Amino acid sequence: MRTAGELAELLGLKLQGDAQARLSGVASPERAKSEDLIYIESAQFAERAAASEARCVVAPAGAEIRGKTVLEAKEPKLAFAKAAALVAGETAVKAGVHPTAMISASARVDASAHVAAYAVIEAHAEIGAGSEIGAFCFVGEGARIGEGCRLHPRVTVYAGAKLGARVEVHSGTVLGSPGFGYVFGEGRYWRFPQAGGLEIASDVEIGANTTVDRGSLETTRIAEGVKIDNLVQVAHNVEIGEHTVVASQTGISGSSVVGKRVLVGGQVGIADHCEIEDGAVLGAQAGIPTGKRIRGGQVVWGTPARPLDKFKEQYAWFAKLPELAERLRKLERRNSGEPDRK
Amino acid sequence: MRTAGELAELLGLKLQGDAQARLSGVASPERAKSEDLIYIESAQFAERAAASEARCVVAPAGAEIRGKTVLEAKEPKLAFAKAAALVAGETAVKAGVHPTAMISASARVDASAHVAAYAVIEAHAEIGAGSEIGAFCFVGEGARIGEGCRLHPRVTVYAGAKLGARVEVHSGTVLGSPGFGYVFGEGRYWRFPQAGGLEIASDVEIGANTTVDRGSLETTRIAEGVKIDNLVQVAHNVEIGEHTVVASQTGISGSSVVGKRVLVGGQVGIADHCEIEDGAVLGAQAGIPTGKRIRGGQVVWGTPARPLDKFKEQYAWFAKLPELAERLRKLERRNSGEPDRK
Amino acid sequence: MRTAGELAELLGLKLQGDAQARLSGVASPERAKSEDLIYIESAQFAERAAASEARCVVAPAGAEIRGKTVLEAKEPKLAFAKAAALVAGETAVKAGVHPTAMISASARVDASAHVAAYAVIEAHAEIGAGSEIGAFCFVGEGARIGEGCRLHPRVTVYAGAKLGARVEVHSGTVLGSPGFGYVFGEGRYWRFPQAGGLEIASDVEIGANTTVDRGSLETTRIAEGVKIDNLVQVAHNVEIGEHTVVASQTGISGSSVVGKRVLVGGQVGIADHCEIEDGAVLGAQAGIPTGKRIRGGQVVWGTPARPLDKFKEQYAWFAKLPELAERLRKLERRNSGEPDRK
Repeated sequence: MRTAGELAELLGLKLQGDAQARLSGVASPERAKSEDLIYIESAQFAERAAASEARCVVAPAGAEIRGKTVLEAKEPKLAFAKAAALVAGETAVKAGVHPTAMISASARVDASAHVAAYAVIEAHAEIGAGSEIGAFCFVGEGARIGEGCRLHPRVTVYAGAKLGARVEVHSGTVLGSPGFGYVFGEGRYWRFPQAGGLEIASDVEIGANTTVDRGSLETTRIAEGVKIDNLVQVAHNVEIGEHTVVASQTGISGSSVVGKRVLVGGQVGIADHCEIEDGAVLGAQAGIPTGKRIRGGQVVWGTPARPLDKFKEQYAWFAKLPELAERLRKLERRNSGEPDRK
Repeated sequence: MRTAGELAELLGLKLQGDAQARLSGVASPERAKSEDLIYIESAQFAERAAASEARCVVAPAGAEIRGKTVLEAKEPKLAFAKAAALVAGETAVKAGVHPTAMISASARVDASAHVAAYAVIEAHAEIGAGSEIGAFCFVGEGARIGEGCRLHPRVTVYAGAKLGARVEVHSGTVLGSPGFGYVFGEGRYWRFPQAGGLEIASDVEIGANTTVDRGSLETTRIAEGVKIDNLVQVAHNVEIGEHTVVASQTGISGSSVVGKRVLVGGQVGIADHCEIEDGAVLGAQAGIPTGKRIRGGQVVWGTPARPLDKFKEQYAWFAKLPELAERLRKLERRNSGEPDRK
Repeated sequence: MRTAGELAELLGLKLQGDAQARLSGVASPERAKSEDLIYIESAQFAERAAASEARCVVAPAGAEIRGKTVLEAKEPKLAFAKAAALVAGETAVKAGVHPTAMISASARVDASAHVAAYAVIEAHAEIGAGSEIGAFCFVGEGARIGEGCRLHPRVTVYAGAKLGARVEVHSGTVLGSPGFGYVFGEGRYWRFPQAGGLEIASDVEIGANTTVDRGSLETTRIAEGVKIDNLVQVAHNVEIGEHTVVASQTGISGSSVVGKRVLVGGQVGIADHCEIEDGAVLGAQAGIPTGKRIRGGQVVWGTPARPLDKFKEQYAWFAKLPELAERLRKLERRNSGEPDRK
């Protein structure tokens, strides 16, 4: 619960209207109730906001919205996102360990952390201050969860994985499982050692039912601020740079390196030993073949992936292939002197 | 356990043979034991049925199968599916709450529901009559599970999600997790609020390890009778219409709307803000680009998806590209007057 | 903990140097400490090994590495993998059932097995000698887990599934769930019976968050030595032959048969009723259409998949389509006698 005046002050926004307006949630203009905060991206949506039941709107500087309290922002969507975190933020973690949580005597759980029912925390694991470990979470031997983390119910952290501060992990996700590496010999596969680590830096968020493998002989690393969606696969020895975003169902194969601020679409496949440089954009379903480098800032699509402009040009001709073939046939007829008997 | 006579009466089928024949299971003709029900789609398979150990066969009207009791059906496969539900149906739910289930004092669990060992049900959640909540299920605050639902072991329902009647959800699935939406600003990503709802209507079935996100400012909606396979991703604000079928590993991105009776193949990617009209068919691995509309009843394939006929025609020419190129080269030689020195 | 001499003897390798050198782990040359075993594939990496802190190296026969104890191997990577299993192998399973494990009175758990906290084992299930059932695992009614198996935390085994010996299953995986099969009739879908079995042979390893469905009227079968990665889908009635490898996020649809020693890349889609013969190789993201047969030993790529050589040739021309179209346009101009007004 916040007032419009508090938000204006905390976020450095200019306020028009009632500083005392109470805000208890966020919504779209159409679904909002009076205490919900709404936003519009541009002044052209002023009518949409005016018609809402909401009393308070985040809007571009100078927007006038009939009968509403307005929080003026240069980037309204960004200001709205920040305001939402203040208005509808998570309630404070209730410190304490549920009596059914099974915590090894050698584990170290900060007194301000919360461990929910039926969580299991193994020997020598550490849980940082203010962190929340959900029901049915499993934190393996020697794993380390930093401060202010949140593991939703049913997350598995294998032995030895390390998470920084404020890492949020959604239900069903598995962190630090052994990677998929074998050596074939004598008619069968032998597991190649999967003895490396997993290090996840601070402010990372990982969706539901995602899998992140530990390194084989190296370390799998996910840098600060990375956001990973649901059902993503991150294989052994992968490195993902700061503030990179990976959409759902994408797979990143062994030893590939993804740079900073890369945008990876959904269902992308990055084969092993690729290098995706900073700021690249991989379109949905793109396939990056083994060992390929994608240059910084490049936008690619397709399998095998190529620059988006090239893909579009080639694809346009692909769609015209039947027509091209017909034109070629006509030319051949004319050149051979045959009558056109189509 | 049913008799052939009971099935005939319950399903409105004509019976030839022994009305007292007992049926305790279903099987293929080759694997059936005497009390298993089998079926054949057409009279041409009569020999296959005759050779089976099964005593009772669902078969097309008029089929005569030596020595067997026959249940005649216009649509034998459909009749067999219905009969199987009667013969081998789930045993009745044993009402009651396991002593290890952790149920909030403010949750409402119907007296006829069953809650298995180590399930956790949070404050203000509701479990309807005859529903079954499996081991290690987590039902979040204020979530509502309708009547006759079945959550298999290890399902997570995030706070506030609503399920209708007779919804079945398989192990490992996560319902109502926050969606993947961020605003970039000041060098990092800020989470866009994921405060919307998730509403799943009646008679929906969802496979294992699937993820369905709650809305951001809207509601994610799955309509009556929808069937979703394993490892599917349904993003925030998506709507899926009645009796639509979504095969394994498909992903549906934010705010896309899928109509009624749509067939979505496996590994399909539907980008954000798409509209898939009623009765469309999306072939396996098809990719639907952002904002695209697929017309009602249309069958599409490929990435970017196009009508199946077009895809096949273009693809046929694609396969002949080396030949087309060679024909073009010859024409060029002839036109330039160069000798053909290939 | 092993000595170099023990490894040489156990693996039949020739030893140069100190037979008493102690080995307590494995690592890459750059990360190794003195007691870690390292390896090099070829003598050209001798300097890399020489510069390592490790005291002991697996290397090709004849390699001389300054100051190191060398284990000579014909196939150094294979020898290293075997050595790693000896040096850093799993500690012995601590037999016993955790007091919170919920085991049906009719289940049979071998006295040498270990059942961890909060595992649930249902009626008539069997757990073999030396097997380890992790926390939050669910083993359904009548399921059978062989000897020396390891289910990591949070694995679901549905009723009736059968696992052979030494099967390892990672966290979040679901085995034996009902498949995705329906019959449409009277305006809705009816579930086709999913009453078949699931049989997993010995020495199979299955990654995290993977799903393997039971058969519908047949049996889903995974043969000896198969390795399956994370987030893979195996549908009802599928058969996978011995020593086949399936990479992450691949889906195998109903009733498809995959032969022996097949290599299936990541994100491959195999539609229903396909036959992939022994030794075939399916490149990442390949799509195999319904009913298609891939010949033994063939290497394919693309959707629909075709032989790799053909794919590469066709793809090369695809990339040149704009150029081909331009050449065609020029020829047309010349033939029509029009001036070239591009």
